[in-house]
Amino acid sequence: MSKKCLTMDKLVTHCKSVGFVYPGSDIYGGLANTWDYGPLGVELKNNIKKAWWKKFVQESDNSFGVDAAILMNPRVWDASGHTANFSDPKMDCKSCKSRFRADTLIAEHSKGEVNPDVMTNEEMEQYIETHHVNCPRCGNHNWTNIRQFNMMFSTSRGVTDAGQDIVYLRPETAQGEYVNFLNVQRTSRAKVPFGIAQIGKSFRNEITPGNFIFRTIEFEQMEHQLFCKAEDSERFYNEYKQKAWDFVISLGFSPDELRFHDHDKLAHYAKAACDIEYLFPIGWSELNGIHNRSNYDLSRHQEYSGKSMLYLDPVTNEKYIPSVVEYSIGCDRLLLACLCDAYDEEQLEGGDMRVVMHFHPFIAPYKVAVLPLQKNLSAKAKDVYKTLSKKFMCSYDEAGSIGKRYRRQDQSGTPFCVTIDFDTLEDNTVTLRDRDTMEQIRMSVDDIAAYVEKKLEF
Amino acid sequence: MSKKCLTMDKLVTHCKSVGFVYPGSDIYGGLANTWDYGPLGVELKNNIKKAWWKKFVQESDNSFGVDAAILMNPRVWDASGHTANFSDPKMDCKSCKSRFRADTLIAEHSKGEVNPDVMTNEEMEQYIETHHVNCPRCGNHNWTNIRQFNMMFSTSRGVTDAGQDIVYLRPETAQGEYVNFLNVQRTSRAKVPFGIAQIGKSFRNEITPGNFIFRTIEFEQMEHQLFCKAEDSERFYNEYKQKAWDFVISLGFSPDELRFHDHDKLAHYAKAACDIEYLFPIGWSELNGIHNRSNYDLSRHQEYSGKSMLYLDPVTNEKYIPSVVEYSIGCDRLLLACLCDAYDEEQLEGGDMRVVMHFHPFIAPYKVAVLPLQKNLSAKAKDVYKTLSKKFMCSYDEAGSIGKRYRRQDQSGTPFCVTIDFDTLEDNTVTLRDRDTMEQIRMSVDDIAAYVEKKLEF
Repeated sequence: MSKKCLTMDKLVTHCKSVGFVYPGSDIYGGLANTWDYGPLGVELKNNIKKAWWKKFVQESDNSFGVDAAILMNPRVWDASGHTANFSDPKMDCKSCKSRFRADTLIAEHSKGEVNPDVMTNEEMEQYIETHHVNCPRCGNHNWTNIRQFNMMFSTSRGVTDAGQDIVYLRPETAQGEYVNFLNVQRTSRAKVPFGIAQIGKSFRNEITPGNFIFRTIEFEQMEHQLFCKAEDSERFYNEYKQKAWDFVISLGFSPDELRFHDHDKLAHYAKAACDIEYLFPIGWSELNGIHNRSNYDLSRHQEYSGKSMLYLDPVTNEKYIPSVVEYSIGCDRLLLACLCDAYDEEQLEGGDMRVVMHFHPFIAPYKVAVLPLQKNLSAKAKDVYKTLSKKFMCSYDEAGSIGKRYRRQDQSGTPFCVTIDFDTLEDNTVTLRDRDTMEQIRMSVDDIAAYVEKKLEF
Repeated sequence: MSKKCLTMDKLVTHCKSVGFVYPGSDIYGGLANTWDYGPLGVELKNNIKKAWWKKFVQESDNSFGVDAAILMNPRVWDASGHTANFSDPKMDCKSCKSRFRADTLIAEHSKGEVNPDVMTNEEMEQYIETHHVNCPRCGNHNWTNIRQFNMMFSTSRGVTDAGQDIVYLRPETAQGEYVNFLNVQRTSRAKVPFGIAQIGKSFRNEITPGNFIFRTIEFEQMEHQLFCKAEDSERFYNEYKQKAWDFVISLGFSPDELRFHDHDKLAHYAKAACDIEYLFPIGWSELNGIHNRSNYDLSRHQEYSGKSMLYLDPVTNEKYIPSVVEYSIGCDRLLLACLCDAYDEEQLEGGDMRVVMHFHPFIAPYKVAVLPLQKNLSAKAKDVYKTLSKKFMCSYDEAGSIGKRYRRQDQSGTPFCVTIDFDTLEDNTVTLRDRDTMEQIRMSVDDIAAYVEKKLEF
């Protein structure tokens, strides 16, 4: 499929018009960088989560899930370094009171020619002064100095009057896996190497514009942390690079639209880090990350909590703090990639054009659409719907010509349309139409479920 | 099953020890009223969500899902009334700086004899003064006056320097359905009556102790809002009472442990409201609510957003703002009820006792445990695990005697144990043991999946 037809604007319009994604708080003019999933989006998202969980938890006998609270003890963020370091250099426009990232101002003003990542705050201030970088909003040049602005959303627990009980919305899910290392190991009687996986929301007080659901202030992460011996971490790092790649490919992505990107700059504790990038309509951008984090995370939690994170190997009697190989993928971002990858505009014979979402059937929002050819076939069609909907998400549609209804299902990405006609009343057969090939075959109502189930295999 | 054996303390201990639920941020001494789901808990919770979604979205041709952002435009909470009214009467102890609900202080001091709900703040202050109600924490009697304390967690968006950009963590999911009424109706081409369903987290700054996961500061709600004509709302209210009841029963609850509780006090706009209560170890307590809310919600959003919520009936050409019948159930609370209902201690022949979780197979965390009788059967057992885990969450365990391993699976609620023995190598048959009856049958490896799938039907 050629993706040349797709721009981000076109995708956003499509998502809004068929019910994948709406602007958050839409009737109130929105809330910047929030989006709500509509009827199709919520199914797509649930299916993506299910696909990921299947490959990284269900089919692995040494991976265990957790679902940790979003609000954690603030000491967690001291240990992780977020309280001290999870900040961006911000400047306020004194004229219009808007806040911007200094590095973004420089990158945009220089059209990418200048790399602000290597500049100190003083150098950035000087650049903005010398090059007359003005406020993108009001056009004035009336900046405060740079201040580091922590990207964690904070709130107050309100248990005491002292106002000392600040808690944060977690900026990443990973700490929920780390702080539960001991609990999971103990209750699952797990032996290193083993993994802890989690899917859940994180929050970041981002100022930067989001490019639809690419970057939002709340987002869902899917993470797998493998705890292993230091000497095995490189092997597992490479293994998880491959697993992460295979997972995306298994959803139907072409290898041409994916690439690895090794990180040049590593955190002081990290041994290796890379992303898988996808060719979004905004260009090559990060889809997920794989990191060899050494034993930094558990060591820090040992230091800050006072709880020993030493693991005693039951076979060799060695004692050590396990290293972590992290694989992290944004659920919303993967969903965006799935939307981009699935979207196509196809010229039909006769001059018509159809917009079709070629999702892998496993992640398609609706699996089957049940369509009575005429309204007086509704009773039979409802029977078929009732049987199939016990097994799959199905759509029922009796409005408009059958051609129009096929188009609507194509736009939603429904892989199979089942049409009930007058023969159905006679011999209990239906026409089953394939979304991708548009071929139609005749089959018994009793055979639909098994046929579809086979196609859903993942 | 007799539930006389179960106290909340016993259940908490069981949940911590086998991996259903851990205290949140455990290694840091926790964070009050937060809990983390462990490997068993996360599967149980996902299955409960799946069960609910199946009955209220998947099998309904006029219900549509949404997944709205947690952070919404603050005007939403003005419209819903939360900004003005979602508050509790709080007093601070000036000695130890602890904060308490005045109504709870009175209810506890009077051992339930006095009903603070009918008292004004002044009357409550006077009662606390006259009856020498002291601080439960430090024992002093040194109170501030009562202040209304809003239970919404607030945070700052940080886009401008003005500090005017307060946003709230949603205290309920319902508004996400209401503000998307127009979008869902338009994109799904839905006709009233139709429903919008959502599963998602809400946050309340509760001070009251939580009774394990019964009341927590963050919790997941499962909600279905039916939009209908005013004159149909009573009929649908009764229909959803029945549906809500049937759903809980379908999970295996006994009708003896459930009851309806009609609300005496109704909100001014409400036409009717009731709960279904479950007999928790802490006594009869709310499990879910059903409310006939009139057209209050959409009317308020029309007033505050300026967007018309009028629905034009395509058949009768009537124009009206739809009424709402709400069905809302706490996912964590239902999970707690499922844990309570499933828990049993059974006396075995020979004097041994087994703790067993009799979950409906559909919601059981693991469906099948694969157990090689001896370690040298691991290769075959891993083969069987690999095949079955493509279809279900399976557990693999080769440590300890087979009797001990059965007990562990009973404690987790795994409905089926498959034991690989030396005959398996010869004729590809295994022993399949039923959790509830403890009966064992011999069957071919090839037949396990179909057998289990049949038992999972829901």
